[in-house]
Amino acid sequence: MDPYPQAPPGAARPGGRTARTRAQVLDAVASLLLEGGFDALTVDAVAARSGVHRTTVYRRWRDTGALLADSFDAAREQPWQPPDTGSLLGDLTEINRQIVAALTEHPSITGALITASFRSPAAARALRDFWEDRFATAAVVVERAAPGADPRTVLIAACAPVFYELALLRSPAAGDLAERYARVGAAAAG
Amino acid sequence: MDPYPQAPPGAARPGGRTARTRAQVLDAVASLLLEGGFDALTVDAVAARSGVHRTTVYRRWRDTGALLADSFDAAREQPWQPPDTGSLLGDLTEINRQIVAALTEHPSITGALITASFRSPAAARALRDFWEDRFATAAVVVERAAPGADPRTVLIAACAPVFYELALLRSPAAGDLAERYARVGAAAAG
Repeated sequence: MDPYPQAPPGAARPGGRTARTRAQVLDAVASLLLEGGFDALTVDAVAARSGVHRTTVYRRWRDTGALLADSFDAAREQPWQPPDTGSLLGDLTEINRQIVAALTEHPSITGALITASFRSPAAARALRDFWEDRFATAAVVVERAAPGADPRTVLIAACAPVFYELALLRSPAAGDLAERYARVGAAAAG
Repeated sequence: MDPYPQAPPGAARPGGRTARTRAQVLDAVASLLLEGGFDALTVDAVAARSGVHRTTVYRRWRDTGALLADSFDAAREQPWQPPDTGSLLGDLTEINRQIVAALTEHPSITGALITASFRSPAAARALRDFWEDRFATAAVVVERAAPGADPRTVLIAACAPVFYELALLRSPAAGDLAERYARVGAAAAG
């Protein structure tokens, strides 16, 4: 469920000049965001950091919101397979572990993108699209274990407390966080 | 669970010049935050809006972070009684309804304070203290209905999905949001 499960957006993208340009630009977005937060993210800074001509960046992305939105879109395009551990509790725990890892790594691009979503409506919409897409992909985890349950409700029951604890309360990541709230999700499946 | 259950911070505070000054200053913080967000919140703007001399504001609050932290502290000092509807599901639903109301009113001071917590570490710490205090007060709801359950886990199971949906995913507030996730909390109580 990490927006960057393996590599920065576009890093492993197959060739083509357009794809390479996008990868360079989105890598620059990620590194500027991690270094200086939303305020460091300007189209000019992205152009300078990426080595892509600023008229190209302006033409294709136009503004900071579009750069952030495309970062989420690129993350969404990364292949992600829901876990298949043999039990609903095991699968929800593994999904939560991925979220904990994404939110507690230093620096955390996931955390930086969540923060940016409070500055940019375009980023907020793209964040939502990213998560709804991941929940749709992960629905199979619930459907095969608890056919009568609503997959999205179960997934949010398990995942939302992890986001709430780490991204909103900024609680220290207790060792059992992933499993504790995976149990909540499993209980919600009935 | 609304940071401002009845009135802006300090509004109903009993007399005394110090208390009145604080009420005026924190009212100004709230209105500036609602009008212009974090960027509009400067000590000078708060002094001008509140009519309190800027040297007084600087001496007592020092900076934006301290003003935000004191806004959360004032909210925490507001009396709040956990609901007592006769059932755990009823109580959790009522708590969630209060959170939904606080996050969906226009303008939402709760939403504005959450957003500010992504700009100010002092605000983030104060937000956490506010919520941990509310969870401690609300623990009785779980303790009387499910003595074996961990109150904080049950309360977060019910409330975190509401925050996640409305504050992070920015989902539209579906009619049954409060009750849907109250059921999750009740199921987590075992």
